[in-house]
Amino acid sequence: MASKSNRIKIGILGASGYTGAELIRLLSRHPAAEITILTADRHAGKRLPQVFPHLGGLDLPDLVKIEDADWDKAEVVFCGLPHGTTQEVIAALPRRLKVIDLSADFRLEDPEDYARWYGHPHLALELQKEAVYGLTELKRDAVRKTRLCAVPGCYPTASLLPLVPLVDAEQIDPDDIIIDCKSGVTGAGRSLKEDMLFAEVSEGIHAYGVAHHRHTPEMEQELSAAAGRKIVVNFTPHLMPMNRGILSTIYVRLVNGTSADDLRATLETRYAGEPFVRMLPEGVAPATRHVRGSNLCLIGVFADRVPGRAILLSVLDNLVKGASGQAIQNMNLMAGFAETAGLEQQPLFP
Amino acid sequence: MASKSNRIKIGILGASGYTGAELIRLLSRHPAAEITILTADRHAGKRLPQVFPHLGGLDLPDLVKIEDADWDKAEVVFCGLPHGTTQEVIAALPRRLKVIDLSADFRLEDPEDYARWYGHPHLALELQKEAVYGLTELKRDAVRKTRLCAVPGCYPTASLLPLVPLVDAEQIDPDDIIIDCKSGVTGAGRSLKEDMLFAEVSEGIHAYGVAHHRHTPEMEQELSAAAGRKIVVNFTPHLMPMNRGILSTIYVRLVNGTSADDLRATLETRYAGEPFVRMLPEGVAPATRHVRGSNLCLIGVFADRVPGRAILLSVLDNLVKGASGQAIQNMNLMAGFAETAGLEQQPLFP
Amino acid sequence: MASKSNRIKIGILGASGYTGAELIRLLSRHPAAEITILTADRHAGKRLPQVFPHLGGLDLPDLVKIEDADWDKAEVVFCGLPHGTTQEVIAALPRRLKVIDLSADFRLEDPEDYARWYGHPHLALELQKEAVYGLTELKRDAVRKTRLCAVPGCYPTASLLPLVPLVDAEQIDPDDIIIDCKSGVTGAGRSLKEDMLFAEVSEGIHAYGVAHHRHTPEMEQELSAAAGRKIVVNFTPHLMPMNRGILSTIYVRLVNGTSADDLRATLETRYAGEPFVRMLPEGVAPATRHVRGSNLCLIGVFADRVPGRAILLSVLDNLVKGASGQAIQNMNLMAGFAETAGLEQQPLFP
Amino acid sequence: MASKSNRIKIGILGASGYTGAELIRLLSRHPAAEITILTADRHAGKRLPQVFPHLGGLDLPDLVKIEDADWDKAEVVFCGLPHGTTQEVIAALPRRLKVIDLSADFRLEDPEDYARWYGHPHLALELQKEAVYGLTELKRDAVRKTRLCAVPGCYPTASLLPLVPLVDAEQIDPDDIIIDCKSGVTGAGRSLKEDMLFAEVSEGIHAYGVAHHRHTPEMEQELSAAAGRKIVVNFTPHLMPMNRGILSTIYVRLVNGTSADDLRATLETRYAGEPFVRMLPEGVAPATRHVRGSNLCLIGVFADRVPGRAILLSVLDNLVKGASGQAIQNMNLMAGFAETAGLEQQPLFP
Repeated sequence: MASKSNRIKIGILGASGYTGAELIRLLSRHPAAEITILTADRHAGKRLPQVFPHLGGLDLPDLVKIEDADWDKAEVVFCGLPHGTTQEVIAALPRRLKVIDLSADFRLEDPEDYARWYGHPHLALELQKEAVYGLTELKRDAVRKTRLCAVPGCYPTASLLPLVPLVDAEQIDPDDIIIDCKSGVTGAGRSLKEDMLFAEVSEGIHAYGVAHHRHTPEMEQELSAAAGRKIVVNFTPHLMPMNRGILSTIYVRLVNGTSADDLRATLETRYAGEPFVRMLPEGVAPATRHVRGSNLCLIGVFADRVPGRAILLSVLDNLVKGASGQAIQNMNLMAGFAETAGLEQQPLFP
Repeated sequence: MASKSNRIKIGILGASGYTGAELIRLLSRHPAAEITILTADRHAGKRLPQVFPHLGGLDLPDLVKIEDADWDKAEVVFCGLPHGTTQEVIAALPRRLKVIDLSADFRLEDPEDYARWYGHPHLALELQKEAVYGLTELKRDAVRKTRLCAVPGCYPTASLLPLVPLVDAEQIDPDDIIIDCKSGVTGAGRSLKEDMLFAEVSEGIHAYGVAHHRHTPEMEQELSAAAGRKIVVNFTPHLMPMNRGILSTIYVRLVNGTSADDLRATLETRYAGEPFVRMLPEGVAPATRHVRGSNLCLIGVFADRVPGRAILLSVLDNLVKGASGQAIQNMNLMAGFAETAGLEQQPLFP
Repeated sequence: MASKSNRIKIGILGASGYTGAELIRLLSRHPAAEITILTADRHAGKRLPQVFPHLGGLDLPDLVKIEDADWDKAEVVFCGLPHGTTQEVIAALPRRLKVIDLSADFRLEDPEDYARWYGHPHLALELQKEAVYGLTELKRDAVRKTRLCAVPGCYPTASLLPLVPLVDAEQIDPDDIIIDCKSGVTGAGRSLKEDMLFAEVSEGIHAYGVAHHRHTPEMEQELSAAAGRKIVVNFTPHLMPMNRGILSTIYVRLVNGTSADDLRATLETRYAGEPFVRMLPEGVAPATRHVRGSNLCLIGVFADRVPGRAILLSVLDNLVKGASGQAIQNMNLMAGFAETAGLEQQPLFP
Repeated sequence: MASKSNRIKIGILGASGYTGAELIRLLSRHPAAEITILTADRHAGKRLPQVFPHLGGLDLPDLVKIEDADWDKAEVVFCGLPHGTTQEVIAALPRRLKVIDLSADFRLEDPEDYARWYGHPHLALELQKEAVYGLTELKRDAVRKTRLCAVPGCYPTASLLPLVPLVDAEQIDPDDIIIDCKSGVTGAGRSLKEDMLFAEVSEGIHAYGVAHHRHTPEMEQELSAAAGRKIVVNFTPHLMPMNRGILSTIYVRLVNGTSADDLRATLETRYAGEPFVRMLPEGVAPATRHVRGSNLCLIGVFADRVPGRAILLSVLDNLVKGASGQAIQNMNLMAGFAETAGLEQQPLFP
């Protein structure tokens, strides 16, 4: 473990949200990192345990407003701010800082896509050009070299990891992809909304954002890149009563002569040796509770009983591999650390 | 409300399971019914509140073994026994009894289908010929006349109510139907299985029975009847941490020129005036928590962003409309009562 | 069932909260009641299902602002408004209206108690003198005659039903009462607070309002009346991850020579014939899930292993017997209906 | 981190239960430990991920029967077997092995206590004499020297940590202690019981084992030792719908002139510098969700409004500080490692 003075200095912008808390949980045990700046506008002046009592006992700086942050203290910045705001904040940072952004602001390469899905023009087009979409296992080399990494959304991470290699391999029809996702509540953040109250979430499930969720263009961007042409997908997210976890159930049509076993073999080859993506054996379905708190993504492949079709199942913890964990995985690459540094916890079950 | 002596006399076989408890909850408030026999082999000799403390304060017979039941006391029998056993028990009942069966034993018209999916030959083929598949809204006339009603499975009820009228109307392609279902735990009954322990279910979701769940042939039977030819569907059930409720998210391909609005219009016409099936307005997604404890099925229809596709969403309480409530609805028809008798409770939310 | 024109006309003020929804759920099936006014300031102009989708399919008036309510349409008003506001609203109502208030505003007889616990002087002292504390089983005669009924808090209802008869009988020491309560989230209403978000409530428990919860003076008022002198109690509420239900675990010291069996006998005698209060047999502990959705209160009595002490356990559904159900029970008395009218549902389990 | 060959070799007996899984989760990241034996009679021959899918990707031995374990491979044994069995198994182990037992078998010093509470005579009385009750913070020196450590029960750990120093200091009356505990389900282990099914636990709470739970004699043994005479306590456990966590709400009577602040000061002094026990500031109540997955115990002290009384609140994760974590903490002492080795994870929230 590095001595404190040798550790990389880290600022976390938006430390009072769930992804902020998760970054702190993980980075406080990272062997080569030290948290030196924490911002949280509404809570500026507080100590962190006043906002997150579970994070007591750590030697951390107090929360400050972004405008009061001393950037000289940081080498890397994680940004967990709302989209829109993020562009302006990041544009104003010293360019020597490496930036890992957890918002949606730098995920879409096409500014028109951004404007269409987010309802306003992109305000930092030059920065956008530098950004790398940090789906680590599929973009490792680009991530290593970038200064600005856009961490993918939780739903796209869970869905693209199984899908992209199969589109690449031309084993599935990219025009017939149905992505049915089930998510816990922390994906929606810590903001006060009536439909996030315990009594409105527990003991039930419902679909939301049907046919217009903002993670759709991310998925289509990456699938289009793999297919070499514009792809449109069905994506239907559902909200269910759990804190963490996404299950993506994906229905695909096989290209002539391909079988579900072929798909599994392709993914096994693609992810052999990957520390965080694991293929399950035939017949085993992944469960979100088996990745809770870890940076893992588990993937299963099943033959459909409809001839010529298959079902992909993938799970991850939306706050870890779907957000803060993948962010740190990317930081490790950008900083030249071991990719798994700080991310080796086992899942917490039950 | 009928005086006690005028009420129809009811036996409940398998009263110690969740569907049994739900029958008792509902029938104890039914204006024209009286429970006269309760069987529960393992618990014979007990009073009901020893098995279900929430059902105290009712004037009910003690639990007996099936072989000790005095059939002279009953006019109608609800059967909530395991499949296989059910066939033998029902075959041995006096033929003057009306029977409403909640097991899978009389749902499949084709004995080969039964043998294939349940692993043993059907033992009461003659009875099977009498049985009516009691999806009430779609089989009302046949139910009224039958002596033996097979109550559909919870998943098929949630899925067939939106699908059958659309296949009937030739507005969707019956060869491209994907049914992604999410269910609470009570669908699995009260039996002791490690994977039903609180710690194994809470805070998580997983798919199970992928491509081989036994509710598949029911769905295919009814869709095939509607299409006039053999239909194969994809059906993927998921288990999630809630007690009651099924959400069926169904992905369909539109027949040329049809729109999602057309589908909604067809269903609105089909279900106009139905007391228990309600179409939601455009843009509103149903939630399982809004039907909890009621006999309702809510259906929403959405255009997919993939051209030529649509999404159907339907919810119900698996213990009510998906089991005991629909069973009573069928009994009401078979006995000549108002179809809604005993089933008019509002949902319980939160 | 009364024909519509003969039913009592009911206004519900504050219909968009959980107690409002529960009043509507229950009153919509009440044989002698008709809802004619629904107010909800923030949601005025909407139809009820826009606010509570589970309450579709009912023939109900639209939501209006209180100042737009036509009081000529009502005979009885249920008031589910915040404390403070309530006093002013009720003071302004036509005096011919019977009022059942679910807030805390008319529960405390001593205006100084009110001022001390609620932080401002009582604004309707004359009305306060008319009010009856509607703990129905213990105040039946007074409730029958009053025009203004203050429905007790959920914690006091669960705690006073077992305690008052025992203090009355001088079987327990009123100076040594410890009330440890566990509640679901709906007791806190539907308002937006960070600590009511699903992610902040699920998978955990904590005490809150330790030694200063506002339900304390209600309990002390009624226990003091029973004891004939000023009583101070310990009351510690805990918030836990469930929607409905309160469990009150009460630790008492026996008066010389009294046993736990004596306490149980006293309560059995006191509540014999009561439709909604049930004593459990020796050795049986009540569970909140066994009263869900019902107006029941279940009570168990246990000997402590510390000599001279006993433990009382009582459960109820905080939205029914702890709020809207008890309110209707009181209305039934005030209107001369059968006390159980509209309140005979069985609990919903699971 | 020690190289593999220098690590202490560890056997885990009973690896297919929740405490076994938690030992593996924690020890697999321990810097100086290596798991070399895993036993699980029912699952012998399987690989661990077949029993606990969340523990994939680790380099672990296969599960074997106890009688097939090669004790030469181990230096330390953790025993997570049922009481009764445990005595015989441990008695048969080579005496050179250090043993940390998570069952109740070696917790009670008085064999008559054991026989009374567990219903059969103790079968390893000689071993019992060697055993140390491993409530680490209060028994550190004895633990360091022992060969056989009995890990305290989860309820006793949560309750004794705040109580013992106060009885020691003669600040509270040991004859008037009421311990009201609320626990998640994993304290009951992974065995198949109807009352542990999701549908029987969710959305509810109930007391169990009232006045006769087997953790009572442990608490009384340690409190009696502190008081210097036989102490009897009230202990009432409650089961609630969460996986992990215990909250102990303890009602105490102050010795003349003592205040709640005095109690807090005593505990602050006692636990100053302790890595795993943290006192909360005045007015802050601990929540179980803030220690999830960690080895922490948080304690708050409140003045009661009943004069002369106070309330202690403590929380811990029953699988970590209440079982496997405290077991490893003890092993660290017994093996001469840093006490915090392998136990420095932050809590997982939400």
